[in-house]
Amino acid sequence: MSRFWSPIVHSLTPYVAGEQPVISGLVKLNTNESPYGPSPLALEAISQATADTLRLYPDPTARDLRAAIAESFGLDANEVFVGNGSDEVLAHTFQGLLNHDGPLLFPDITYSFYPTYCRLYGIAFQQIPVDGEMRVRLDDYRRPCGAIILPNPNAPTGIGLPLAEVESLLRDRPDQVVVIDEAYVDFGGESAVPLVRHYPNLLVIQTLSKSRGLAGLRVGFAVGQRPLIEALERVKDSFNSYPLDRLALAGALAAWKDREWFERHRELIVASRQRLAAALRELGFEVLPSSANFLFARHPGKVGAVLAGELRSRKILVRRFSAARIEDFLRISIGTDEECDRLLAALGEILQ
Amino acid sequence: MSRFWSPIVHSLTPYVAGEQPVISGLVKLNTNESPYGPSPLALEAISQATADTLRLYPDPTARDLRAAIAESFGLDANEVFVGNGSDEVLAHTFQGLLNHDGPLLFPDITYSFYPTYCRLYGIAFQQIPVDGEMRVRLDDYRRPCGAIILPNPNAPTGIGLPLAEVESLLRDRPDQVVVIDEAYVDFGGESAVPLVRHYPNLLVIQTLSKSRGLAGLRVGFAVGQRPLIEALERVKDSFNSYPLDRLALAGALAAWKDREWFERHRELIVASRQRLAAALRELGFEVLPSSANFLFARHPGKVGAVLAGELRSRKILVRRFSAARIEDFLRISIGTDEECDRLLAALGEILQ
Repeated sequence: MSRFWSPIVHSLTPYVAGEQPVISGLVKLNTNESPYGPSPLALEAISQATADTLRLYPDPTARDLRAAIAESFGLDANEVFVGNGSDEVLAHTFQGLLNHDGPLLFPDITYSFYPTYCRLYGIAFQQIPVDGEMRVRLDDYRRPCGAIILPNPNAPTGIGLPLAEVESLLRDRPDQVVVIDEAYVDFGGESAVPLVRHYPNLLVIQTLSKSRGLAGLRVGFAVGQRPLIEALERVKDSFNSYPLDRLALAGALAAWKDREWFERHRELIVASRQRLAAALRELGFEVLPSSANFLFARHPGKVGAVLAGELRSRKILVRRFSAARIEDFLRISIGTDEECDRLLAALGEILQ
Repeated sequence: MSRFWSPIVHSLTPYVAGEQPVISGLVKLNTNESPYGPSPLALEAISQATADTLRLYPDPTARDLRAAIAESFGLDANEVFVGNGSDEVLAHTFQGLLNHDGPLLFPDITYSFYPTYCRLYGIAFQQIPVDGEMRVRLDDYRRPCGAIILPNPNAPTGIGLPLAEVESLLRDRPDQVVVIDEAYVDFGGESAVPLVRHYPNLLVIQTLSKSRGLAGLRVGFAVGQRPLIEALERVKDSFNSYPLDRLALAGALAAWKDREWFERHRELIVASRQRLAAALRELGFEVLPSSANFLFARHPGKVGAVLAGELRSRKILVRRFSAARIEDFLRISIGTDEECDRLLAALGEILQ
């Protein structure tokens, strides 16, 4: 607390990201990173860009990257907005598109950055409880509101929503912006991107952090019809002209174009997830049905915090949230099969 | 305009950055970049970081970079905040430290992003006219206000303020945050960083874009006492956990540590500036006294827009602003001596 702070600062409750500890031999399954390094073509493009030209500002419009993303979706480059990770894209979206008279709706169990953004921008919000099976019930979102944001698949549950249900909500709410946050969609979710041309109220947000193995490069994007994208551009150009540096632009472009790498590695991760889910169930875990690159699971015989602590003492990091209803769940990022085996071995020891 | 926009979006007037055209053979003196590529040690550090570890998130606290910056100033790492270019640092500063009951004061002729930030965050502001010689008169800032932000040297004039005057203002305004924006300080300005330990109301912002030749990497920072830095951390952690990617962190750290490269290149730029200023005066230009890596100059016989256009047709880019009082000035970034000579030759032709 300080008299020098703007009043808003006193009311903030900053988001706490998962740990990034530097411990050798660690099995790090706590922040949903890919266990596989990015496309070699991305590394090569970054090497090419590591040159004296770093003295020059990057392209503030990120034209080439937007064009490549747009092309793969059959959209125009002007229907794509890019930012410094999907977190920055989300921040601009909250400020530019989600601050209306009615409350913003989102699930009570969801990405815990959402209420933080709301406090940063003074947005009234209402958290809609997920049901007993931790599912988002879209009928509960058919109520007066200012706007809606839903992650699909949801985090940290991993549960996906069928596209037909999303479309039905878009049709029922033509006057409200509906944001679908698809950070994890590439691992088995149904993307709403094909709906963009039909629904002017739809914004879809994705990231290169997970399915492109580039969490360390910070690139995310949004797609939507022109008026929604224009709002994001206006906010961004009032905030920071060049949020993506030259290396991020080069690496993201090459990674996006390498479809073969993308398909191969997401299949590996989905296969490892199925294998890990089966093995956890064998150990007595309740495992929610995941369409993401992580599992959300709890063991009826073990308090979540204790389990996470015992794993940590064995150099295995998973993420646990202290919120009500989910405090006994562990969110386990999908690692390589070898990493998953180390986790299973440790759990076997702990639970015996 | 769209009914989907948050109300704030309608009132934004986004900042327009200088052009980044792709034209071969261009002499680009319009965005105050360094004519010299960054330290080879920075390029090497980036190459080292271009690896499979890009699959992992960067350090959200940028610990090593903050520690290195702090050490060189004799400060603690907790007294340093880093961001995605000094533009992002400024944005968080406006939101977190400059929104108070009274108006924010800054010069009428200054970095044109300041009013844009004010509109983005709903901050009342008052622009204080510079005097007839385009100088900031600090006596004019001794009036009731919420906070003060001053670039030193000022942009686009390049005129520096003596440190004793800055200190006197800090002493007279103990209840107001005073931000000194030192984007250009390394080319002859007097930095206020040594005052940080004495004035809890002082925040100093710098960037690696200019004097470290890293505009393409997007790294800026602020130094101040703990309560001011904590406000910036709270805003940043409510906005984006990881604004600096792994490559930017690695490159910035190595560039910051390479003092020898830094000293040598800033001396080159200062020498080129003195040479260019003398030559422009020879051609009849009025050249403001610059402590920055650019000159602000006008020719009594030539309208600024015409002159900028004629230079552009000769593949030489300079920056011109259309604001009253400065519409006939050109802001000319200091290039290599060869680039300055091409500019001078072109001006010789145009003015003959």
